[in-house]
Amino acid sequence: MGEALDISLDEQIMPYIDMANLACGFHAGNPVMMHQSIKEAKANGVSIGAHPSYPDLEGFGRREMECSVEEIVSLVIYQSGALDALCQSHGVKLNYIKPHGALYNTMMKDIEVFKAIAKAVSKYDKNIKLMILSNAHNDKYATMADKYGISLLYEVFADRAYKDDGSLVPRSERGAVLSSKEEVLQRAKLLQKEGYIKTINGKNLPLQADTLCVHGDNAQALSIIQALHKLNHEN
Amino acid sequence: MGEALDISLDEQIMPYIDMANLACGFHAGNPVMMHQSIKEAKANGVSIGAHPSYPDLEGFGRREMECSVEEIVSLVIYQSGALDALCQSHGVKLNYIKPHGALYNTMMKDIEVFKAIAKAVSKYDKNIKLMILSNAHNDKYATMADKYGISLLYEVFADRAYKDDGSLVPRSERGAVLSSKEEVLQRAKLLQKEGYIKTINGKNLPLQADTLCVHGDNAQALSIIQALHKLNHEN
Amino acid sequence: MGEALDISLDEQIMPYIDMANLACGFHAGNPVMMHQSIKEAKANGVSIGAHPSYPDLEGFGRREMECSVEEIVSLVIYQSGALDALCQSHGVKLNYIKPHGALYNTMMKDIEVFKAIAKAVSKYDKNIKLMILSNAHNDKYATMADKYGISLLYEVFADRAYKDDGSLVPRSERGAVLSSKEEVLQRAKLLQKEGYIKTINGKNLPLQADTLCVHGDNAQALSIIQALHKLNHEN
Amino acid sequence: MGEALDISLDEQIMPYIDMANLACGFHAGNPVMMHQSIKEAKANGVSIGAHPSYPDLEGFGRREMECSVEEIVSLVIYQSGALDALCQSHGVKLNYIKPHGALYNTMMKDIEVFKAIAKAVSKYDKNIKLMILSNAHNDKYATMADKYGISLLYEVFADRAYKDDGSLVPRSERGAVLSSKEEVLQRAKLLQKEGYIKTINGKNLPLQADTLCVHGDNAQALSIIQALHKLNHEN
Repeated sequence: MGEALDISLDEQIMPYIDMANLACGFHAGNPVMMHQSIKEAKANGVSIGAHPSYPDLEGFGRREMECSVEEIVSLVIYQSGALDALCQSHGVKLNYIKPHGALYNTMMKDIEVFKAIAKAVSKYDKNIKLMILSNAHNDKYATMADKYGISLLYEVFADRAYKDDGSLVPRSERGAVLSSKEEVLQRAKLLQKEGYIKTINGKNLPLQADTLCVHGDNAQALSIIQALHKLNHEN
Repeated sequence: MGEALDISLDEQIMPYIDMANLACGFHAGNPVMMHQSIKEAKANGVSIGAHPSYPDLEGFGRREMECSVEEIVSLVIYQSGALDALCQSHGVKLNYIKPHGALYNTMMKDIEVFKAIAKAVSKYDKNIKLMILSNAHNDKYATMADKYGISLLYEVFADRAYKDDGSLVPRSERGAVLSSKEEVLQRAKLLQKEGYIKTINGKNLPLQADTLCVHGDNAQALSIIQALHKLNHEN
Repeated sequence: MGEALDISLDEQIMPYIDMANLACGFHAGNPVMMHQSIKEAKANGVSIGAHPSYPDLEGFGRREMECSVEEIVSLVIYQSGALDALCQSHGVKLNYIKPHGALYNTMMKDIEVFKAIAKAVSKYDKNIKLMILSNAHNDKYATMADKYGISLLYEVFADRAYKDDGSLVPRSERGAVLSSKEEVLQRAKLLQKEGYIKTINGKNLPLQADTLCVHGDNAQALSIIQALHKLNHEN
Repeated sequence: MGEALDISLDEQIMPYIDMANLACGFHAGNPVMMHQSIKEAKANGVSIGAHPSYPDLEGFGRREMECSVEEIVSLVIYQSGALDALCQSHGVKLNYIKPHGALYNTMMKDIEVFKAIAKAVSKYDKNIKLMILSNAHNDKYATMADKYGISLLYEVFADRAYKDDGSLVPRSERGAVLSSKEEVLQRAKLLQKEGYIKTINGKNLPLQADTLCVHGDNAQALSIIQALHKLNHEN
């Protein structure tokens, strides 16, 4: 959230979610938007997560950048600390960190980047959780996180297509984003009851889910989130 | 400090100073440079100050921007919090905040901007001090700071010319920067012994001084600072 | 146009417009988005205008910045030249320049800024037109433009409320944006038939109109533009 | 040039050089600095080259970014066109393009990036030359450039150490930059008389040289350039 200049959609969505990833100014957002989003989140009892990114405002953080470990550690602490300071000024606390875009993807495919981010969280504040893409090797990640003294949150994307190997279908490919409310709801129900989702090829993919992610730039975001919220409160 | 890509000058200066204003990425600097500067400051027992700016990387923060009070409060907390988080990861603490460039000048000429910055400091952390330009009305500023529950530090510029009214000669004017070591030393001695400095017109200007500022981009910065350091330790 | 990451709305709008103002990377947009917008504009026979801004990507160019005449001249030439070069690589030519946001507003309230922009256009390419807000003193502006050897285009905002003095109701005030298709159509018809529009207070405001502007971030942009296109082709 | 806020060094260097690479705002520089550098270059009869970069103002363009061919083509045309427009406003013309930092390195190691840049130059203006790192395979590059209808300039770095394979010793390694005037002069003489330089291991490396590059951020830049200028005019 806090990615578009017009935050009226964010305000409509807030009552229906539990956790909000806030852009920290490196791929989108700016200090005053972060301040406003925190106010909204607080009013709705929503947990606040930092959404740090490579410094690529122009490319919305979607381009991988060749950063050293030291650069990654520093940019994660910088952005999370900036958001946390704004949280503090509202009397709330940063709850978790979820890297954005290319930084998230790189974290999931390059273990050194995962370690750099885990180190950043650990050095800044061990009470803050790190959110990663739920996959077949969650145990391996949990063991590494343990070494850094931090906890993980596993997320499943409600509105992105998965390959059979558990990775996301890239945005540049057809069908990468599920924009129909029905598809998303079906996936959520399946995950809740059976513990797996369907891949783009129709296979069953078992996934641990601490949280379900819907992208704010999905045209159907509001109605999808309302439907998921209803589903969650019926059960 | 942390304003130039090549931080070797910063490293040379660190042993001779007591306080370092670190650029926070809005007019210069970036997370990894901030991280490196903190490491150097810590190694030399130097107090760390945030040097927040208008968001103007291209113009080095020297252009005034039309920001609302809410924007100023947010951008000061954002930058200071980012630096403080990096400090925290090194086991040190942000000591004070000194606005940079146009934001500093606007703070000294527009009382609403001063209040916005004082509010930012107050909402973020009341133990952090706010550094302002020492002037004839320090009492007035102290009274306002009191209302926000924060403390002020008064600084005198060692290497900038003053007008008779206590304001700085703008950089665009001739003689704005003192680049001779002798001139600066003479000013420091006069201030130490007599409590005043000479304005550009030769008048005596009494000024309270908690700290003496030398600009890192002054070509003579290193030798000026070494001389001031020697002067200070002779007494 | 070229202001949002998702350019699908731009693509839908292109068939219904005659002129497109393209963001040049200083308040929004980036080189590859500009390249794509030019391709779309060319395919639809739409005239291309540069939409240069203060360098404020973070604030969408909506904050006035204290720039010297030399800075304004340079930033207008830089952005217009960058877009024109991309046009050239597609075998088309930049047609006009319309400053964006705060730069546009400052141009209309500070004659020195208008002159700086006129000078920029003149020094770069006298065949490129400068678009300004149509007002009661168009003659005065035309005389000045003449001195710089350039031509003006007068625009009326289809979707922004006007004060009685011909200035725009600021976005921060209620009713600043007309989002109902009917209101906009009524204004367009009135302007076409009678040569005036209604101010926010209901007064008649006569305005010369070379072009009618609808903002791309208006939620009703597409349907408003389709309706205006239909109106225009019925007559 | 045009990379540091203080352009006094640039002004001192201008009389001693034949070609100047001007930063175009993506890794350093801004429109008004470009405008001033052009003025200086023109006054000294110096050829002007564009120095386009990945969009990484924060990292000085030294980090590789994962850009598509379309993105590279667009960002090269954007930056070169912006500079050329400013040149045009001074009645001079852009002479050549030399990519900066990571973009330059990527161009020399990834042939697809070289082609993207050649395509950009070709689509924008075939009279503009492309400057590349002189190496053992200059013929191969010339053949490719031919297909795009453009000409190449081969440059040798006066102040950077070379490996035996003709690539540059990375800045992160010891001895990457030659900062002694004597070493640089010796290299220049050897190249002029014998057509080769010495690698970091002392081997002879034959190199075609249309131009000799000295980095503006080399602490000895001015004295090195003056010595090279003298050497050149003695012969």
